[in-house]
Amino acid sequence: MDYKLILQTIKNEVAALENTGNVATYIPELAKIDPSKFGMHLNCISSGEFNFGDCNERFSIQSISKVFSLTLAMTLMGDELFERVDVEPSGDPFNSLVQLEYEQGIPRNPFINAGALVISDILISKLENPKKEFIEFVRKLSGNPSIDINESVFNSELSNSFRNAALVNLMKSFGNIENAIEDILDFYIYQCSVSMSCAELSKAFEIYANSGASFNSEEQIITSRKTKRVNAIMQTCGFYDEAGEFSFRVGLPGKSGVGGGIVAVHPGQYTVTVWSPPLNPKGNSELGMYALERLTTLTGLSIF
Amino acid sequence: MDYKLILQTIKNEVAALENTGNVATYIPELAKIDPSKFGMHLNCISSGEFNFGDCNERFSIQSISKVFSLTLAMTLMGDELFERVDVEPSGDPFNSLVQLEYEQGIPRNPFINAGALVISDILISKLENPKKEFIEFVRKLSGNPSIDINESVFNSELSNSFRNAALVNLMKSFGNIENAIEDILDFYIYQCSVSMSCAELSKAFEIYANSGASFNSEEQIITSRKTKRVNAIMQTCGFYDEAGEFSFRVGLPGKSGVGGGIVAVHPGQYTVTVWSPPLNPKGNSELGMYALERLTTLTGLSIF
Amino acid sequence: MDYKLILQTIKNEVAALENTGNVATYIPELAKIDPSKFGMHLNCISSGEFNFGDCNERFSIQSISKVFSLTLAMTLMGDELFERVDVEPSGDPFNSLVQLEYEQGIPRNPFINAGALVISDILISKLENPKKEFIEFVRKLSGNPSIDINESVFNSELSNSFRNAALVNLMKSFGNIENAIEDILDFYIYQCSVSMSCAELSKAFEIYANSGASFNSEEQIITSRKTKRVNAIMQTCGFYDEAGEFSFRVGLPGKSGVGGGIVAVHPGQYTVTVWSPPLNPKGNSELGMYALERLTTLTGLSIF
Amino acid sequence: MDYKLILQTIKNEVAALENTGNVATYIPELAKIDPSKFGMHLNCISSGEFNFGDCNERFSIQSISKVFSLTLAMTLMGDELFERVDVEPSGDPFNSLVQLEYEQGIPRNPFINAGALVISDILISKLENPKKEFIEFVRKLSGNPSIDINESVFNSELSNSFRNAALVNLMKSFGNIENAIEDILDFYIYQCSVSMSCAELSKAFEIYANSGASFNSEEQIITSRKTKRVNAIMQTCGFYDEAGEFSFRVGLPGKSGVGGGIVAVHPGQYTVTVWSPPLNPKGNSELGMYALERLTTLTGLSIF
Repeated sequence: MDYKLILQTIKNEVAALENTGNVATYIPELAKIDPSKFGMHLNCISSGEFNFGDCNERFSIQSISKVFSLTLAMTLMGDELFERVDVEPSGDPFNSLVQLEYEQGIPRNPFINAGALVISDILISKLENPKKEFIEFVRKLSGNPSIDINESVFNSELSNSFRNAALVNLMKSFGNIENAIEDILDFYIYQCSVSMSCAELSKAFEIYANSGASFNSEEQIITSRKTKRVNAIMQTCGFYDEAGEFSFRVGLPGKSGVGGGIVAVHPGQYTVTVWSPPLNPKGNSELGMYALERLTTLTGLSIF
Repeated sequence: MDYKLILQTIKNEVAALENTGNVATYIPELAKIDPSKFGMHLNCISSGEFNFGDCNERFSIQSISKVFSLTLAMTLMGDELFERVDVEPSGDPFNSLVQLEYEQGIPRNPFINAGALVISDILISKLENPKKEFIEFVRKLSGNPSIDINESVFNSELSNSFRNAALVNLMKSFGNIENAIEDILDFYIYQCSVSMSCAELSKAFEIYANSGASFNSEEQIITSRKTKRVNAIMQTCGFYDEAGEFSFRVGLPGKSGVGGGIVAVHPGQYTVTVWSPPLNPKGNSELGMYALERLTTLTGLSIF
Repeated sequence: MDYKLILQTIKNEVAALENTGNVATYIPELAKIDPSKFGMHLNCISSGEFNFGDCNERFSIQSISKVFSLTLAMTLMGDELFERVDVEPSGDPFNSLVQLEYEQGIPRNPFINAGALVISDILISKLENPKKEFIEFVRKLSGNPSIDINESVFNSELSNSFRNAALVNLMKSFGNIENAIEDILDFYIYQCSVSMSCAELSKAFEIYANSGASFNSEEQIITSRKTKRVNAIMQTCGFYDEAGEFSFRVGLPGKSGVGGGIVAVHPGQYTVTVWSPPLNPKGNSELGMYALERLTTLTGLSIF
Repeated sequence: MDYKLILQTIKNEVAALENTGNVATYIPELAKIDPSKFGMHLNCISSGEFNFGDCNERFSIQSISKVFSLTLAMTLMGDELFERVDVEPSGDPFNSLVQLEYEQGIPRNPFINAGALVISDILISKLENPKKEFIEFVRKLSGNPSIDINESVFNSELSNSFRNAALVNLMKSFGNIENAIEDILDFYIYQCSVSMSCAELSKAFEIYANSGASFNSEEQIITSRKTKRVNAIMQTCGFYDEAGEFSFRVGLPGKSGVGGGIVAVHPGQYTVTVWSPPLNPKGNSELGMYALERLTTLTGLSIF
């Protein structure tokens, strides 16, 4: 497989496309990002790394962080975790309260905001120093101790978190939250504020392509069985209410963030990260979706 | 891989389980099925077939037929098909009118009843003799010209189709139905009334495990690209509002029916069918889910 | 009270207003109505009748007919009627299936389409010749044996009744419909196709202002207790999802139709009908609402 | 009208009834109320006062306070108030977030919790010392300077207000809240914690039966037009999702609270308060509903 040629083809195609999406604007730090940024990084188990564009520039990973926090929680807790958060696709926008109310405070899955807030609650209960242990977990996965949050993103989001506060309060009213509202919002916004590059994300996601261990590592971060489950949740729930579309077009488990990043995983083969800030109407990177669709088409490989 | 031993293990485990589900009762033909029936049939590309139990007894395939009708429609029509039916998981029970109303008559996906009714409408418009051409398509896929519908199932469902009539009428009011209501219900119920055995279903699903062609065949029934898409839809939408749970526990694309059948596909590896009539509260075969979860666990193989 | 002067004032004010609403267009017979038509007819128990404009021209009464059919059903059946249809405002548009599904086929009230279809079902079960007995009931209330349906409205609506068919089928699937779908739609559309003038409607509604008997009559059409209940339902449910607004602005029980008619009742005082075809976004006559608001303001009289 | 005899009849009937409702239990102060308490107080414009039972014992007025806060806000603000809160019945339980989300943060009416929280926000913006001015307004209406809140009710509710916090946060995310979340919850819970007796409530509600002025007073608290509007909102929205049922059975505008109190108003005739703590499944006093239904039946008087 000539991955180098394939990425060159995608690079040329993307350059010729008009990028009609819109950068997220709910906080100034995201609104001011240059919409023409584009990076792609492919990290193969057996054939090495391939990349182009702004693949080493850090951006706000936002909801991609939910994969890390779920993984960390699964290392600390058994299947009883899934009594507090379900694993079904939501069928509604990512921050909808409607389903949460009908379903008595049990979020549909860990990748909608409500579910990630429950995971935050779990981490706060289980960890001595939740923020520190979380960022160290991410640093370890990516092999880079310099990874950190963007402070101004953190502060902006903290002062603009009314909808997330509504979600936590609603779940607390149903008895599905243990810790103080403020602590949960503080931790959740912290995790969303992490900045990473495409290359760092592709590295950090290796465990999902390699049964729970980083490439060329013997250390099992999570069990093979749990890895399979995280991938299954990424497959059915990783893209808000566009999970089916992503599965249909790309055919890989993955996770997107409103910062314009998408990471996808081909178990046994590779991890891949794209970054392009303009989002389609459902909140996923428009050119990122395109680039990944072309990748699985040109390689002829998807999990299906 | 010792598939024979693995199936023997599953057989023993299933025999020891209490089957707490309930057989579907909305028509007498389903209600009177012996709940202790159990069949399993595994059909591997390279290692042949393995099976046990009632794997050659025909049962009502019900919603599993939706995979065949979608496939047939995709051979007759391009991507414009997906302007009339979406590919997103529904997050609501399989026959819900709620989403259909909010989403202006466009069903969430082709595997909920509303979506399958749109596919029926398409087949009626595109085919000269829809019922005959549909059953012949199924016979061809399964290599068995004796496959047919169960007439009494057909008649029972026809006289008990008020909710499906509500769905078609609602979609017609939104302009998403071309043909007469009665013709669509007649065809849709016909396709659901087909009877097949586990062995026949495993055979008929070979195209989904083999890029669009039956095992050992050179005839391409659908393109590789379209095969990938059907698998993606099975993955995210094949189990009503339990698609995430199936993906999470089993990790394969598949489709269930209220007759108690489930077919699953491991692309490049095998197809597998289980049949056990008692259903769990979400309408999927309880022991069937269990058997498939054990299969991917014991083989250590899933798409994730 | 100088009703003559008050109506003159309203006439002048209405003439000076721009009528920004839109005539209903779902069938050609309604779409082609002259939007500048305006009629008003006030029928006082003690002070006689006052009117102006097109108050003697017949128009399609549409949903106003639901008051007559409910009244007729209440003369034939006791409180068990309200086990099949509730008396709560709907909070959703008049033909929503959403609430009907969540509430298991029991319509919110007899004035949304679903509820009126249940009333149709009841009348078909209870009457020997439902259409004939219904129209004779309306003729009797209005004292005019020439009242009839508009045949072309009837035929147009019959060929465009998919959404109502969806509602009846859904309720039948929940067991809340006894008769054949076609018969119910036929009767329901018949009742909606009745043509009456403002003067005729004001006359026919006298029973609601006079404890169940027409003005100057000793014949009790329905009991005083049941009259009070019909008025209560008109008050809380008579204006689709604008019942609160009408109550707030006008302060009288009433009922509107998409033909542009509104009848309102001041128990013990008067009935009043206005007709102006252009509708506001919620489906109620725009100038009709205005005229009635002015009437209760200028007379200083409302039930509140 | 022999009101004395009528109340005696109601007293005897109520004594003979089994009270099958359940006292509210979400805070200990309400849970421990003696369920056999019953008081009724009728306050007629022209015939004086009639009462029986525990009509002078104070109880937690809870949501009845929403009438006072709406009235106070209407004295401070014109019709632009109704751009921030609608006047339509909700059709959903009193604290539902579903409608609020679909309707972009504009509550259905001022008597569901969300609407009352918007009114709290308005009062905080408009008043210098909101709590003090509110309680003084209630004291003035009831002519009793000793009226106050129950401190332990206030503290219990404050520590158990997650669902209300969810509502305010959601509305703030839609831009419909001006002040700090904590201040709004503090004020809202304060107003709900007021304790009053049936006699005091009947006195305080005189303005709604007398066009905006207390009986025998010349001071106009609110205009006649605004009084009519408050009554209209009580009529269509005063009883959570049982407004239609109350209108149907009792036929008067009114307001209930989970403390078991109900106040109703017959404009031009009387005010009436009942108190019986056990609630029906929709959250309204079971015997209170009964007593008021009997009152309008036995007097033969309702607004309809």
